[in-house]
Amino acid sequence: MDYISYIRRMDYDELENFAEHIREYIIDVISKNGGHLASNLGVVELTLALYRVYNPYEDFIIWDTGHQTYTHKLLTGRWDLFSTIRKFNGLSGYTNIFESYVDRFGAGHVGTAISAALGIEQALRLNNSSANVVVVIGDGALTSGQSLEALNQIKTLNSKIKIIINNNSMSISKNVGALSHLFDKLRSSKVYLETKKTLKKSMSFELKNELKRIRDAIKVSISGEDFFEGLGLKHFGPVDGHNLKELEDELKRIKDYDYPTILTVNTVKGKGFENSEVNPESFHSAGKFDVSSGVFIKSKGIISYSEAFGKMLTKIAEKDEKVVAITAAMKSGTGLNEFAKRFPERFFDLGITEQMCVTFAGGMSTLGFKPVFAVYSTFLQRGFDQIIHDIALQNLPVIFAIDRAGVVGEDGPTHHGVFDIAYLKMIPNMKIYAPMDIQDLLNIMHTVFKFNIDGPVAIRYPRDYEFGKFEELYDKIRLVDLDKWQILNEGKDIAIIATGYPTKSALSVAKRNGWTLVYARSVKPIDKETLSWVFENHEEVFSIEEGVINGGFGESLSRYGKIRILGIEDRFVPHGSRKELLKILMLDEEGIENQIKGVIERRKNYEDSNRTW
Amino acid sequence: MDYISYIRRMDYDELENFAEHIREYIIDVISKNGGHLASNLGVVELTLALYRVYNPYEDFIIWDTGHQTYTHKLLTGRWDLFSTIRKFNGLSGYTNIFESYVDRFGAGHVGTAISAALGIEQALRLNNSSANVVVVIGDGALTSGQSLEALNQIKTLNSKIKIIINNNSMSISKNVGALSHLFDKLRSSKVYLETKKTLKKSMSFELKNELKRIRDAIKVSISGEDFFEGLGLKHFGPVDGHNLKELEDELKRIKDYDYPTILTVNTVKGKGFENSEVNPESFHSAGKFDVSSGVFIKSKGIISYSEAFGKMLTKIAEKDEKVVAITAAMKSGTGLNEFAKRFPERFFDLGITEQMCVTFAGGMSTLGFKPVFAVYSTFLQRGFDQIIHDIALQNLPVIFAIDRAGVVGEDGPTHHGVFDIAYLKMIPNMKIYAPMDIQDLLNIMHTVFKFNIDGPVAIRYPRDYEFGKFEELYDKIRLVDLDKWQILNEGKDIAIIATGYPTKSALSVAKRNGWTLVYARSVKPIDKETLSWVFENHEEVFSIEEGVINGGFGESLSRYGKIRILGIEDRFVPHGSRKELLKILMLDEEGIENQIKGVIERRKNYEDSNRTW
Repeated sequence: MDYISYIRRMDYDELENFAEHIREYIIDVISKNGGHLASNLGVVELTLALYRVYNPYEDFIIWDTGHQTYTHKLLTGRWDLFSTIRKFNGLSGYTNIFESYVDRFGAGHVGTAISAALGIEQALRLNNSSANVVVVIGDGALTSGQSLEALNQIKTLNSKIKIIINNNSMSISKNVGALSHLFDKLRSSKVYLETKKTLKKSMSFELKNELKRIRDAIKVSISGEDFFEGLGLKHFGPVDGHNLKELEDELKRIKDYDYPTILTVNTVKGKGFENSEVNPESFHSAGKFDVSSGVFIKSKGIISYSEAFGKMLTKIAEKDEKVVAITAAMKSGTGLNEFAKRFPERFFDLGITEQMCVTFAGGMSTLGFKPVFAVYSTFLQRGFDQIIHDIALQNLPVIFAIDRAGVVGEDGPTHHGVFDIAYLKMIPNMKIYAPMDIQDLLNIMHTVFKFNIDGPVAIRYPRDYEFGKFEELYDKIRLVDLDKWQILNEGKDIAIIATGYPTKSALSVAKRNGWTLVYARSVKPIDKETLSWVFENHEEVFSIEEGVINGGFGESLSRYGKIRILGIEDRFVPHGSRKELLKILMLDEEGIENQIKGVIERRKNYEDSNRTW
Repeated sequence: MDYISYIRRMDYDELENFAEHIREYIIDVISKNGGHLASNLGVVELTLALYRVYNPYEDFIIWDTGHQTYTHKLLTGRWDLFSTIRKFNGLSGYTNIFESYVDRFGAGHVGTAISAALGIEQALRLNNSSANVVVVIGDGALTSGQSLEALNQIKTLNSKIKIIINNNSMSISKNVGALSHLFDKLRSSKVYLETKKTLKKSMSFELKNELKRIRDAIKVSISGEDFFEGLGLKHFGPVDGHNLKELEDELKRIKDYDYPTILTVNTVKGKGFENSEVNPESFHSAGKFDVSSGVFIKSKGIISYSEAFGKMLTKIAEKDEKVVAITAAMKSGTGLNEFAKRFPERFFDLGITEQMCVTFAGGMSTLGFKPVFAVYSTFLQRGFDQIIHDIALQNLPVIFAIDRAGVVGEDGPTHHGVFDIAYLKMIPNMKIYAPMDIQDLLNIMHTVFKFNIDGPVAIRYPRDYEFGKFEELYDKIRLVDLDKWQILNEGKDIAIIATGYPTKSALSVAKRNGWTLVYARSVKPIDKETLSWVFENHEEVFSIEEGVINGGFGESLSRYGKIRILGIEDRFVPHGSRKELLKILMLDEEGIENQIKGVIERRKNYEDSNRTW
C-alpha cells in the first residue's frame, strides 16, 4: 500500500486519527520487541507532515542515528513487517540501506546525517538532479563533533540543505552543552513571541540604512538563533512538533528557500504514552514492558555487568578520592547513576563527545587523577585516534571501562562491540582485560585501582547479566594476578585459551571432554609462559574470544604457535537476541564444542594440506 | 638560563629586538632541519607576551597541535638544544610531555587542546589549585570536530578557561568553513571599530531596561562574535598579534575574568621572513631551504608518491566523470593541487574534518560516484568509526588513498602511519593494497578504477619518492591482478612475503641469497593459494611490512602457518629521518637481511623451545 499518497489525501482530523493509530501500533510492537519507544512516539506527526511535503521516494530524507524511524518505516512499505522489528531476520531498528532504498543512508551512531546529506547533495548537483535533501536530527546529536564539523562546512559547500532539529531537550539522558541552553530558550515560544513584539516596537525608530541589518541581528540574537546564523544558516521555529497543520505550513515555507535552513521542531519524547512521557530516559531504548502499567518485564534477582561496574566504581571511589568517572551521555546505560549521585563533583557527563571524553580524561590524569571513561565498545571507536595520540603515546593512566563488548543483540551491526580487542591491542602501552564473569570484573577493578596504574588500561565486558546480588559478589572480591593466565581445567590433547564472556561456556565444554581450559583474563599482555606450556603439552590449541578474528586475540597467539581461532569471522553480525547471535556465531557452549570436535574429526580423516581449516 | 624572568625585565624595545633574535635563530635552524616555519614565525610576539603575563611553569598553557611551540621551547630551557629539533634523538617538533613538564600535554594532531585543558582545569579545581589554564589554538584547528565538541561543553563545565585564537586565516591550506568567514571579518579591525562607533550613536536612544541586553547582542552580532557568544563564551579582540604592548595589555585584561574567555589574535603566518609570508603554505611544514633565496633544497628528477598519486588521479578523472576527490585541508600535501585546478567542481576540501570527510564520501558514493578520500594514515584514525559504520557496513565503494603510510620521519610518533593495516584489516568488506613502488601505485589505481569497485578500497603508500618522471611511469601502466600475489623471485628454503615499501629491499636480499620473494600487493584479501604454495615449499617463512606487528599483515598470515614477522614491534617509533628510522626498525635492506640470517643461525644452534623468537 502506498501510504504516501494515502496520507496526502487525508484532512487533519483523519491525520490525527492515523497518528494515534500509528502510536498504538508502535507501543504494541515495542512492548513485545523492545526498542526506541520514546523517540519514535515523539516524531509521529513530524514524519507525517514531512512526508506530505517531501516525497521520501524522490527526495532524500536523512534521519540522523536512525533510531526514530519507525513511522518512516511504517509509511514506506514496511507496515506488515513491523512486528519483526529488532528480531533476528526481521526489520532493523535503524535506517538500513539494504532494507529499502528510501533508507537513503544507514545509521545507528549519532551525528553522521549532515555529513552524509552534504555528500548526497553534492552528488545530486553533479547529476543535475533537483531532488531535495533534508536532515532530521535530534538536539542531542548536535553535541557530537561530527555534526558540528558538518554544520561548519554547510556555507562553504554552498549547500541548500534543510535541517529539521527534533528538539526534545533530551538526547539520551538530559542534554548537556551550551547548545542545549539555546534549545531550552527556543522551547519557550511564548517568551520568543513576546520578545518579537517588544522588538517591533523598538524598531519603529527611523533607522539608517546601514542599521537595517542590525535589526536582523537583533532578531537573531534575541531569539537565540545566533549560533546557527553565525555559521551562515537561516534558523526558523520553534514550531509545535505535534501540531500537524503548523508543522506542514512551516515545512512548506522553507522547502523552496534557496539557502541552507534550520527548522527547530519542539517535540515531547514519549508523546502519547504517559509512562514514557514521564520517564523518557528509561523508554529511550526500552526493553519489553507491560503496556497498561508501563512496568518493564525484567527477570528478578539478576545483576548486569553495567550495574556491577557502577556499584564497584562507587565503592572504589569512596576510598580513593582520585577516582573520577566520565561518560558520553550514557550515565544510566553504563551504570553510573549511583556514582553520579554520590560524587557529583567527580562525575562528568560531556554529551555525545567520545573524542573529547578521551582527551579530557588524559588531561585529568596528568594531575594524578584516575579517570574512568565508561563507554560502549562501539562508541569508543569515535575516540580511537585520541586513545593512540593523547593517552597511549603519553602512557597516561586512564581506565577505559568498555561496556557492550561483544554482540549487543537487537541493536545490531552498528552497535556490536566486536572490534575493540583488535583496535586496542595494536596500540603500544595499552593493557586489555576481559573478565569471564561479573565476579572477576570486580576482582580486576579491585586490583587495578589497588596498585598504581602506570599506563592505559581497558576492561571489556558484555551487555549481559548473571543471577545474584552485588553485595554477595563484593564480599568475595580478591586481588588477582592480572597478567597471569589461569589454568581452570587441566586436561590433555586439546587446550582452549578463552578470554572474556565465552570462557564459562568453554570451561563446561573442557570439563565435559577432559580438555585443558586456560582463562586469559589478560588479552594483552600475553602470558607467554603459560602459552608455552599450552603449546608444549597439547596436540591442538584453540582460542576463543567474542570479537573479530581479524586482528583479535587469537591472532596474537598464532604468532607463537599453531592455533585454531574461534571468534567472529570477517563479516558484519546481524541483529537478533544475544543468545541467537552467539548461537549462529557458534560461540555458545554447543557451538564451541561442535567447532572443536569438528576439527578433531577432520584431522582424523584427512591431512589438512593447506594448513587452513 | 631562566628566560621567563629575563623577558619580564625587558622593555618593549628590548623585547622587539629579542623577538628578532628568536626569528633569526628559528629561520637558521629550520632552514637546515626543516619544520613548521611559518606558524612559528607567526607566534613569536604572542609567546613572549603570553609568558610575561602567564608563567608556563606555574600555569597550564596548552598549545593546540603543538607545531607552533618553537619560541615556547626556546624560552623554557631548550635554547641550546634547539638546533637538534626534529633530528633523531633531538627535540620533538611538537609539545612532548617527556621533554619538559611545561609541555603540559603532548600534541601533534589538531584540535585536542581544549579537551585536554578542560580536563586539566577540572583536576586543578578538585586539587584546589588556582593555576590558570590557557589554550592557544589556530583558527583552522577550530574546524575539527573535537575542538567544536569541547567548545560546546565549556559552559556546562562552568569553566573559566582562556582561549587564545591564533587567527592567521590559513590553517594549513586556506581555511574553509563558516567559522573562517567570521575570522575574516574579525581581521578587518577598522571596519569593526567604525561599526562600534556607529552603534554607539544608535544606542544613544533611550532604551527600556529589557532592551539593555539587546545592545550587547547587537555588539556581538555586528562584530561577528556571535558564534562563540552563542556557546556561552565571552569573545574579545581582535588584537594585533605582532604588537607586544597591545597583546600584553589584552592578555592581562582577560587574565582575571571569572568566566571563559576567547581572545582573537591576528597574526601573519611566516611573519618576518618574506618568502614565507608570501607563500605560507609551502613554509607550513617546510623542508630544508636556502635562507637568502627562500628556495627549497630539493633533489632534482625525483617524484614523490603523493605527486604521482595526484597526477594519476587527474588522468583517471579526465576519462571518468564519476571520480571525485576529497581532502581534509591537505590539498597540497596529498598531491591534489592539479586535480583541484582541473576539476574544481569535483574537488572538496572540507577542512580538518576527517570524520565528516569519510561520511561525506559515503553519501556521494550512494549516487554512483567514486569518491577518493586522500588522507594521511595517521589522520584517518580520526575517521575510524565512520569507516566501519558508514562505509564498510554499507559496503560503499569509497577509495581511501592513504598517504604517509609507514614511518613519516621528522614529525615523529604523532604522525607515523603505522597503524592503518591493523585498523583497516579488521573491518569486513575492506580491501587493502600496498604498492611496492610508484609504478605499481599507478597500476593499482588504474586497475581499481577500470573495473567497477564493489566496496571500500584502501591504497597505502609512504612519504617517499623515486627518481623518475610521471610520464615515463604512466606510459608503462598496466592492469594487475589485484588480489593475486606475485612471486618475484623463486628460491629455496627461505621465503619472504613482503608488502608495500620494504618489498624492494626484500627483493634485493632474496635475490642475493637465493630465497623466494613473494610480493603481496594485496594486504587483504590474503592470496591463500600462493600462501599455501609458500608454506609447502619452504623451511622458513618471513613476512615484512612497514607497520605494527600487533594486528598487522604478518599476523593474518600466521593463522595459516608458522611465520616470522618483520615489522614494527609494540612500541611507539620516535622521530628522525625515514632512513634512520627504517634502519633502527631493521626494515631497510641490511636490517631485513640481518634479521632473517639471525633466525637461520639461531635455528642451527639451538631449539627454539618456546616457539617464540
